[in-house]
Amino acid sequence: MLYDAIRSLPIVSPHGHTVPQWFSDDLPFADPADLLIIPDHYVFRMLYSQGVALEDLGIGVAPEKRDPRAIFRHLAQHWHLFMGTPSRGWLEHTLRAVFGITETLGPDTSDVIYDQIAAKLSTAQFRPVALLESFGIELLATTDGALDDLSPHASFARKGRKTRLIPTFRPDSVLDPMAKGWSEAMAQLGALTGEDCTTMAGWRAALMARRQHFIHHGATATDHAIDHLATEWLEAGTAQKLLEACLRGRADDAAKRRLYNHMLIEMAQMSIDDGLVMQLHAGSARGTNRALTDRFGADKGADIPLPQNWVRGADGLLNRVGNDAKLTLIAFTLDESVYARELAPMAGHWPALRLGPPWWFHDSPNGIRRYLDAVVESAGYWNLAGFNDDTRALMSIPARHDMWRRAVAEHLDAQIAAGRFGMTDAERIAQWLAVGAARAAYRL
Amino acid sequence: MLYDAIRSLPIVSPHGHTVPQWFSDDLPFADPADLLIIPDHYVFRMLYSQGVALEDLGIGVAPEKRDPRAIFRHLAQHWHLFMGTPSRGWLEHTLRAVFGITETLGPDTSDVIYDQIAAKLSTAQFRPVALLESFGIELLATTDGALDDLSPHASFARKGRKTRLIPTFRPDSVLDPMAKGWSEAMAQLGALTGEDCTTMAGWRAALMARRQHFIHHGATATDHAIDHLATEWLEAGTAQKLLEACLRGRADDAAKRRLYNHMLIEMAQMSIDDGLVMQLHAGSARGTNRALTDRFGADKGADIPLPQNWVRGADGLLNRVGNDAKLTLIAFTLDESVYARELAPMAGHWPALRLGPPWWFHDSPNGIRRYLDAVVESAGYWNLAGFNDDTRALMSIPARHDMWRRAVAEHLDAQIAAGRFGMTDAERIAQWLAVGAARAAYRL
Amino acid sequence: MLYDAIRSLPIVSPHGHTVPQWFSDDLPFADPADLLIIPDHYVFRMLYSQGVALEDLGIGVAPEKRDPRAIFRHLAQHWHLFMGTPSRGWLEHTLRAVFGITETLGPDTSDVIYDQIAAKLSTAQFRPVALLESFGIELLATTDGALDDLSPHASFARKGRKTRLIPTFRPDSVLDPMAKGWSEAMAQLGALTGEDCTTMAGWRAALMARRQHFIHHGATATDHAIDHLATEWLEAGTAQKLLEACLRGRADDAAKRRLYNHMLIEMAQMSIDDGLVMQLHAGSARGTNRALTDRFGADKGADIPLPQNWVRGADGLLNRVGNDAKLTLIAFTLDESVYARELAPMAGHWPALRLGPPWWFHDSPNGIRRYLDAVVESAGYWNLAGFNDDTRALMSIPARHDMWRRAVAEHLDAQIAAGRFGMTDAERIAQWLAVGAARAAYRL
Repeated sequence: MLYDAIRSLPIVSPHGHTVPQWFSDDLPFADPADLLIIPDHYVFRMLYSQGVALEDLGIGVAPEKRDPRAIFRHLAQHWHLFMGTPSRGWLEHTLRAVFGITETLGPDTSDVIYDQIAAKLSTAQFRPVALLESFGIELLATTDGALDDLSPHASFARKGRKTRLIPTFRPDSVLDPMAKGWSEAMAQLGALTGEDCTTMAGWRAALMARRQHFIHHGATATDHAIDHLATEWLEAGTAQKLLEACLRGRADDAAKRRLYNHMLIEMAQMSIDDGLVMQLHAGSARGTNRALTDRFGADKGADIPLPQNWVRGADGLLNRVGNDAKLTLIAFTLDESVYARELAPMAGHWPALRLGPPWWFHDSPNGIRRYLDAVVESAGYWNLAGFNDDTRALMSIPARHDMWRRAVAEHLDAQIAAGRFGMTDAERIAQWLAVGAARAAYRL
Repeated sequence: MLYDAIRSLPIVSPHGHTVPQWFSDDLPFADPADLLIIPDHYVFRMLYSQGVALEDLGIGVAPEKRDPRAIFRHLAQHWHLFMGTPSRGWLEHTLRAVFGITETLGPDTSDVIYDQIAAKLSTAQFRPVALLESFGIELLATTDGALDDLSPHASFARKGRKTRLIPTFRPDSVLDPMAKGWSEAMAQLGALTGEDCTTMAGWRAALMARRQHFIHHGATATDHAIDHLATEWLEAGTAQKLLEACLRGRADDAAKRRLYNHMLIEMAQMSIDDGLVMQLHAGSARGTNRALTDRFGADKGADIPLPQNWVRGADGLLNRVGNDAKLTLIAFTLDESVYARELAPMAGHWPALRLGPPWWFHDSPNGIRRYLDAVVESAGYWNLAGFNDDTRALMSIPARHDMWRRAVAEHLDAQIAAGRFGMTDAERIAQWLAVGAARAAYRL
Repeated sequence: MLYDAIRSLPIVSPHGHTVPQWFSDDLPFADPADLLIIPDHYVFRMLYSQGVALEDLGIGVAPEKRDPRAIFRHLAQHWHLFMGTPSRGWLEHTLRAVFGITETLGPDTSDVIYDQIAAKLSTAQFRPVALLESFGIELLATTDGALDDLSPHASFARKGRKTRLIPTFRPDSVLDPMAKGWSEAMAQLGALTGEDCTTMAGWRAALMARRQHFIHHGATATDHAIDHLATEWLEAGTAQKLLEACLRGRADDAAKRRLYNHMLIEMAQMSIDDGLVMQLHAGSARGTNRALTDRFGADKGADIPLPQNWVRGADGLLNRVGNDAKLTLIAFTLDESVYARELAPMAGHWPALRLGPPWWFHDSPNGIRRYLDAVVESAGYWNLAGFNDDTRALMSIPARHDMWRRAVAEHLDAQIAAGRFGMTDAERIAQWLAVGAARAAYRL
């Protein structure tokens, strides 16, 4: 019953990785493989773990040389591998609820289902913008580099669609001296803003200018991908010296890391001024399969979680800005052992801190159940940031929000059964977790 | 049914932080805010996390300048924040079962409920000692500094009340060279005992004398608050040199820590001789919000758990004394990941080791469920130390024991349903976990 | 119902520690204590934790000086200690299902039950080989030192029994320079194979020869016991220098460890060539109670789990061989916090990696439930290696497989109830987890 009360609420998606051009151009998706398999690392990593070559899935293959029907058959033949995984739940939801397919996927039905999907993709109601509207997506945030001009967002906004499409400021390329191509990106940043990025003051001014550009296009948040969370405030002279060393290529990894750790705090201070919510996604060891990264590039399924220490790692940041309620920090972790030990007690204390939903591998029925079990007793419901789907798989958005809403309803049903609170309170919390918390945390 | 068999058993509270003068003086509590909010860091930390200033809750405000009714309204207005937290469960139990209040707390009922509580507090049956008796508290342990004269305990004992009030020896101030004011405390320790605390032999003798003083006043246990658990036995000469360096202010943090780590083992050896049970509360990073600590002092809601390694940390201690069944060590952790991995296997091996109940953030329905789920299979029930409420919130004591007993009964009902054992065994274990294990572990 | 479909399937036991001579000699077991208590560290560790001396349990006592009936009484008197533990479940199953005993064990029934067991042990159907067959054990793997001649396996094989008895190659004694007696073992290895083990090439050739010897006697797997997992590929010159330093006694622990970490990768490369599956049992601090180890030797109940970092620890190994589907690596951990964080995401990516079942302290109903809850969503069912009992307690083998099968059935029933998949898929998975996955992972 609780589920019924929230299942049809609009979708608020304040963090994700869809491509803004999809919506500004509104061209049809190429084919079922291009839509459902090639961009989805959840899907191809599992196939790869059981011996399917990435090339056979079209990864690292030029679009014109791919055989999408054959790629789709690989999924169909290995469909049993996904039993018990959220990917299977999302794909089943997509096939059934979005494409209206009633057959069960398998080797025998692969071609038939492929044809059904392909046929739909060519119709008007399966264009990206029509999908946004039929999915009931009220707001969709993309994630965009600090140097992006955001013209797709501007173009989309001019069309006056029902869905609000907003960018998110992801400055890692110009913030993290360890990032590949940082020096070049810094030069571009200077050129774009007319600031002298060889000084801390100029770098700061340039970043502030880019943030204003994002705000102008609707952004309400920044995002930071951090492998090992550490934060330390540096005196002005120290920071300037490190910046110069980094720019001259004379800094070692420790020095680069120190400057980055400082810049995270600078970002938080800018957030106090300009109001952008700050997201910290910490704890993924990126590209742990180096042969794969060398051949196919980033995001090929070998990013694996790492333990994190949020108490130590966020210490510099929180002791500088954490008492300021004008700031909202949203923390995401892939290390579940910190939920009850660190993040929930911290969110139940620091005015600036909110907990993001289970992320990535833990965005799943069990992951959500363990999260709510671990965090609510110390953080309550009002220090949570609701849900985000964090996906580049457009078709999975309604499925992911539905999975969250079901898990929330199950959690609340159990709370009622245990006598923790009654139905009226549970309904209030259900609404909050389904959409209210995301709107509040992201200032939408 | 299992719950019904244990719900009305007497309360044995072998570890907590109530104030002994409450019971020796037996004066009425000042007002509802002074009773329920100002001393309860669980309560004010949550309010603070959502933007309520500590000053508005009377923290850091002289008693005569506080407006207790206004403080209470802050709780009432933010009562929804506590949904799903154990604090709400405890406070609801207090309002309903102790004060007989039937209205639901909220902005509209704040003043009415405030008045009802205030009226009761002025009556004889709400004096501290009357509460002890109406709560069915058979024994209550306080936590007391090594230099305390324990006169409130002596005075209370002379009155011949039904409840036994005993002190606990907490020597951190004279044991830990890193503790604030350690040198002065050492001088006082010397003066009080007539021992020369500049020698290891004198220090030891002084500590033994204070332990005897506590034993004389009924103590059966010591307690140690440890942020990062480590233990190492030092040769006599090394220890003496470190002591001298610490006293002369020439020791660095590592040297101070080393001496403290050694002294924990000395304490354990004294326990073998004098029979005091030794409690280790390990793994809280104290005062992580430094601005708050500077303004308001310790215990203001910013103590956050840290990961611990009990295998390595207790190695020196256990290899020196852990095989001696004359010793009882009770281990408490805030890092749940060590339950199944370290503490339960250790408790299922070392004769001296018992596991304390879930502590602090984990003293909650989910926390207790996860604890029993994780520890029983390796440690069994007989290596557990039962429950302690560990609270300075007097009114919450019956609520906390009730929450434990409900969670124990639920656990045992599930064990019966799973065919692990039958009702007769379950009843035996229920009695054990409700009161028997605490009496046994604390030698009451 | 799912349980009924798998409860009577044959037992496939691809990893364990029974003694091959039991089956080649087929002599009766000496007495109930020798069978059920003295070799079972799960049992005597719990008794020891509650003050029973190991000597009183016959540990460290010559067989002719033991009083088995008195030893058995210790178990009976302390039988309540085991409530809630898997040991109690296994022993109850053994008493009831294997020995047909209907009384409940306790001080009053100790002698009667002892006599019943003793009487059965003297009969033909309680000889080791008869038990293998009555237990329905299709295959049983033992664990054997690299230098073993495997004559018991050869002798057993010649008899043409229904059960297949195979060895497992456990080379720690000749692979790990930190292992006690490594130099002597290396000399023996050289003598046995005629290779010059003072060169890397010779050492490698010797190990390959011993692996062939094991393969000849039926082995399909190797096994490695690792306290702290780390792997690093060394250039040929570096490895040779470290080997020489180790042989000459000039290497420190770090150097020894580095050579061992390299040799694990050499083993994996040999596995690609000869097809032996590689098992990694990582994360046990061995012999943490040094007084006990000194008096009674290894495996006396003081091995305690340690935290592990599989992402970092297996990095060298996986980046060298993990993309090769010809290799099967099976990972076992005692640190449950890595299931969802590291091992399941890794198994859902690396073609070579499979996850072993919950091990040791976690081979229990709750342990299995937590394992499936944590790993399936990221790894699926097809990256799991099924079950192994890993026991030296022969009588417990059917009980352990039964506990796994019950827990699997409960997990799958819950998945069906949650709508994750239907009965047909669940039955397929149940078969897979009960026997299919073990056969596949171990190439049986």
